[in-house]
Amino acid sequence: MTSVKINPDLQKERDSCTFNTEELTNFFDAGDKYTRKRRELENKIFSIKELKDEIPDEYLSHKEKYENALRKAVLLLKALKKIGYSRNFEDVHKSSFRESIHTGIFKDGSPFMLQYSMFIPTLQGMADEEQKRRWLNRAMNFEIIGTYAQTELGHGTFIRGLETQAIYDEKTEEFILHSPTLTAYKWWPGGLAHTANYCIVMAQLIIKGKNHGMQPFIVQIRDEETHMPLPGIKVGEIGPKLTFSGVNNGFLGFEHVRIPRENMLMKYNQVLKDGTFKSNPNSKLTYGTMVYVRVTIVFGAATQLARAVTIAVRYSAVRRQSRPKPNEPEPQILDYATQQHKLFIGIATSHAYTLLAYWLWDIYTSFKKDLESGNLDRLPELHSLTCVLKVVSSKDCTRLVEQCRMSCGGHGFMMSSSLPQIYGLATAACTYEGENTVLLLQTARSMVKALDQATKGKPLSPTMAYLGERSVTTKWENSVDGIVKSFQKVSIGKLRAAVSSLKQYERSGLSPEDAWNKSSVQLISAAEAHGRAVVMSVYKSEIDKYASTVSTGLKTVLYQLVELYAIYMVLQKMGDMLLYGNLTEADVTVLQRRYEELLELLRPNAVGLVDAFDFRDEVLSSTLGSYDGFAYERLMEEAMKSPLNAEPVNQSFEKYMKPLMKGKL
Amino acid sequence: MTSVKINPDLQKERDSCTFNTEELTNFFDAGDKYTRKRRELENKIFSIKELKDEIPDEYLSHKEKYENALRKAVLLLKALKKIGYSRNFEDVHKSSFRESIHTGIFKDGSPFMLQYSMFIPTLQGMADEEQKRRWLNRAMNFEIIGTYAQTELGHGTFIRGLETQAIYDEKTEEFILHSPTLTAYKWWPGGLAHTANYCIVMAQLIIKGKNHGMQPFIVQIRDEETHMPLPGIKVGEIGPKLTFSGVNNGFLGFEHVRIPRENMLMKYNQVLKDGTFKSNPNSKLTYGTMVYVRVTIVFGAATQLARAVTIAVRYSAVRRQSRPKPNEPEPQILDYATQQHKLFIGIATSHAYTLLAYWLWDIYTSFKKDLESGNLDRLPELHSLTCVLKVVSSKDCTRLVEQCRMSCGGHGFMMSSSLPQIYGLATAACTYEGENTVLLLQTARSMVKALDQATKGKPLSPTMAYLGERSVTTKWENSVDGIVKSFQKVSIGKLRAAVSSLKQYERSGLSPEDAWNKSSVQLISAAEAHGRAVVMSVYKSEIDKYASTVSTGLKTVLYQLVELYAIYMVLQKMGDMLLYGNLTEADVTVLQRRYEELLELLRPNAVGLVDAFDFRDEVLSSTLGSYDGFAYERLMEEAMKSPLNAEPVNQSFEKYMKPLMKGKL
Repeated sequence: MTSVKINPDLQKERDSCTFNTEELTNFFDAGDKYTRKRRELENKIFSIKELKDEIPDEYLSHKEKYENALRKAVLLLKALKKIGYSRNFEDVHKSSFRESIHTGIFKDGSPFMLQYSMFIPTLQGMADEEQKRRWLNRAMNFEIIGTYAQTELGHGTFIRGLETQAIYDEKTEEFILHSPTLTAYKWWPGGLAHTANYCIVMAQLIIKGKNHGMQPFIVQIRDEETHMPLPGIKVGEIGPKLTFSGVNNGFLGFEHVRIPRENMLMKYNQVLKDGTFKSNPNSKLTYGTMVYVRVTIVFGAATQLARAVTIAVRYSAVRRQSRPKPNEPEPQILDYATQQHKLFIGIATSHAYTLLAYWLWDIYTSFKKDLESGNLDRLPELHSLTCVLKVVSSKDCTRLVEQCRMSCGGHGFMMSSSLPQIYGLATAACTYEGENTVLLLQTARSMVKALDQATKGKPLSPTMAYLGERSVTTKWENSVDGIVKSFQKVSIGKLRAAVSSLKQYERSGLSPEDAWNKSSVQLISAAEAHGRAVVMSVYKSEIDKYASTVSTGLKTVLYQLVELYAIYMVLQKMGDMLLYGNLTEADVTVLQRRYEELLELLRPNAVGLVDAFDFRDEVLSSTLGSYDGFAYERLMEEAMKSPLNAEPVNQSFEKYMKPLMKGKL
Repeated sequence: MTSVKINPDLQKERDSCTFNTEELTNFFDAGDKYTRKRRELENKIFSIKELKDEIPDEYLSHKEKYENALRKAVLLLKALKKIGYSRNFEDVHKSSFRESIHTGIFKDGSPFMLQYSMFIPTLQGMADEEQKRRWLNRAMNFEIIGTYAQTELGHGTFIRGLETQAIYDEKTEEFILHSPTLTAYKWWPGGLAHTANYCIVMAQLIIKGKNHGMQPFIVQIRDEETHMPLPGIKVGEIGPKLTFSGVNNGFLGFEHVRIPRENMLMKYNQVLKDGTFKSNPNSKLTYGTMVYVRVTIVFGAATQLARAVTIAVRYSAVRRQSRPKPNEPEPQILDYATQQHKLFIGIATSHAYTLLAYWLWDIYTSFKKDLESGNLDRLPELHSLTCVLKVVSSKDCTRLVEQCRMSCGGHGFMMSSSLPQIYGLATAACTYEGENTVLLLQTARSMVKALDQATKGKPLSPTMAYLGERSVTTKWENSVDGIVKSFQKVSIGKLRAAVSSLKQYERSGLSPEDAWNKSSVQLISAAEAHGRAVVMSVYKSEIDKYASTVSTGLKTVLYQLVELYAIYMVLQKMGDMLLYGNLTEADVTVLQRRYEELLELLRPNAVGLVDAFDFRDEVLSSTLGSYDGFAYERLMEEAMKSPLNAEPVNQSFEKYMKPLMKGKL
């Protein structure tokens, strides 16, 4: 099997595509220059033999998976160094999000992930100049390997509840790090188990019995020569997880571990020798990082979905099944409207969240400039906006990744399809970096405030401005712009209903906290509706913005997708639309019909659309989704890599089965 | 940690439960006698040391997982034989569904699963007396180990498309089994890879060039003494899957393999020596098995959900988080309405599908009597009914299992919670035994027929009778019985809308097949609505039926659950209810309020309700869900079993990390 040959069913699809897929790829990469750059890097890295797995990871033991991931992580660094590639943490371009070499090499995460994503950025953001000189360069050169430890066994999203203590001893000018309980053990940090020798530890700073809140401390946890855990450090791994087998997540406990005063990261808040605590309001500047992380989560959700839908659409083009018309061959399953219904929304949703992430990125960069000039005004809005967008992107993409998996029938259940792993990676984002329900409640809190402000005639932040609009009982409008407005009406309607319930509970004698809790099911639903209103509106306005810059062929299909997305969401949220958006039964019939028409219009371009995501086979890593479309051949090829298949008879036969069969048990 | 001690947070819950949990357990077991019997068996089996894993399966390699599963499967058989337990395949009692020893021992399936569930039942149902004498007893005694091979690489649910051939050679009185293509390879059968030595193979029977459809053949695939694959047999394993690592799923191809004529299972259809094919209409009797299998799927879905919700509710009682009221301790997360909203519907849904499975079981047993007297009248109804109930039970339970997992935050992502594995087991049922979308289309087909019959004044089958009712624009009724009726109205409304669309497409010139395809998104939605109408109505009527037999305390909580279920579903399907059920905005407000009230009413009994499912710790196999509630201690205990934690420094340090850190790469 050479990859020059293409499955004719797939070739036929490519031949009949009506737009230029390369143009769409360039659009995603934010310019053809970046497409070229990305492909050059991919060509170099993916041609390195040592980075390919002879035996797929899924066959290995948990321990072997870690060892293999670490081996590849080190070899990858070496290769990147050799080709002169350096990851610039401070000047990230939009196109950086599209880098796929890590996904292609670590199907299930790398033990160095936190070095890049948290250890170095935290040093950059929170260490003072002296501290940077001590640790930052060493970290950039991988002379030390670090991670970031915040979450504990007993607490996650609720940060104030964290228990690890850093008690200042002014006599020795040291902090004493201590885990007073089992639940105070750090739990989850990537790379912490057996990889990192340094760690940024978030702990409650206590000076002379007074708690000064969570502060960051840099702690050496293992000897640099022997890698043995240092005295008083209890460190190890937390065991297997749904995914991220290569990440080496660990636990960490302290038994009165002393570190010098200079190991608290002191760019903002400081502890002087005598124990004086100097707090700096600019410490809020570090919230910029949080916004950045959420942009990457939105983009990541869109990317995992794009991978899943690429696999599912290609497989649906080569899979043939059933015979609705007796004298015709079995159709490609992509011809079934029910299959199109499962998949095309995946393409549209991935577009929506990609554009949203880029939009959010532009906001973030302008916000960073504000921050640098000390202006924190937009922080609350950005906080509640990124909360809800993190929630809806992770939630929708997870659901649709799973829909893609299930659309591939039994074969989607095979690990070699990569769909189960993609699901694991996608769903994790619903929990990490702020649990989704907790984040929705935070957005709800600011919506309730905004409604109150509006009532008092005060101005609202741009993304919540619509909440202040008087409800007008305008007629339903069956256009995408009309649908954008109706999403806003739904958000307003649900917020008002929730607030009315909240007030009723308060009037009935409940405390504000209990009334809030009783109404919280409605409040999170209102917050989600706000998120959907933002996504719908940004998706449409971004497409409008770019429409004039692309060719007619591409423009047509981009608008078909945004319309499909709008109608799909209306039909999904029909109840809300009927209650608050003035939708009628007649409109539903019209929309349903138009939806069915759009499925048909998009059908010939489905393969082109997923090709345009431009994932190399190494990045998809899927028997079902390879570019050449030889799904069945690849399923068999992968199965033959099983160590179980290396022997015709497994040792268990003589040991257990034969005695059983011979009645000798 | 001894298991006598109970986490005080959990003890408090148990002390304040308002009903007798044992009474509810007996209700699930279909009688206290069966509760006792089940517990006796569990006590015996779960005390066997060799059946416990010292190192949890998740740490093992794929190959080791198989070897461990096989070892335990053989030891379990030995143990069951020793205690004189025999599984009676022909006289199954309701309580048999509640047997949990397999779940407790094989977290991820056993390689002998198909011996019980398909090989022996197929011999019983399709072998003639002579064939039974040859193979059935040997199979019952595990002298031979078998499986059932139907699905192929290229075809699953669409059975007519299967390609494996059995060509009759009348000269030698043999069948020649052959796989003409790669896609004809059997793919998926459990135990096929390295375990089974016999196999029932479904193949296209071809006599003198004429195809007589799929028939069952018994084929020896491995030597009984050496276990080597026999000549012409290509057999091996298909590789890792999302779940079922212990099941040893395999592939099987034939290269002109000859088997004697007597190896076609001939209870019904027969091939005579001269090649005459005698078809027997009673071969439809075997459909009874299909109904049986679907009952087990509905019950299985309810059981997996019950396991997940037990884990999540207990964990939510011991997990404390956040501090809404400044001077009070952190609340149990079970006190948050959003958490109750995620979990209590899981309890109710598990009740709904358990009762539904028992109801279906009673129908099945009466149908079996019909079958024995040659009466096949109810077959079409049972087929379309079990199709849709398999779909809604697998779909709902999968979604809610995942909701339980996510309600446990990060720790739900740990394999040691067992929640990821339960998800895998639950979601698999959406695909196997008929892919869900395909089954919905089959139910839709019979609904369309039924509507047509009704228009012609012909009688409808009992479970579809309501489809013939004239639509009456009665007012919405906020009672459970009112909601039952509104579910039926929604089903009627959606069916009519789909049929109207179907006819419109036909009038516009589309062929019936293309019109059907274009309307299929609406058709599957109508079929699902029918399923929901049946579930809602059966859940309510079964509770009514049993209500008089239970104590007042239990009755109250059972009715609270059915009401919670009804309102939850109305709010979920609000759009349909507004369009077709005459629901109004004012009703929504009332229902929402009542829903919030029910969450509060159920809160004190949540732990009691999951205790009543009566899963032993071995069956839950969850760090988060154990009966004693020491979740954090168990998380750490399990982590310490990791082979990675056996050494303070992994070998990768010297090999890869140190050279990297020293810049010697």
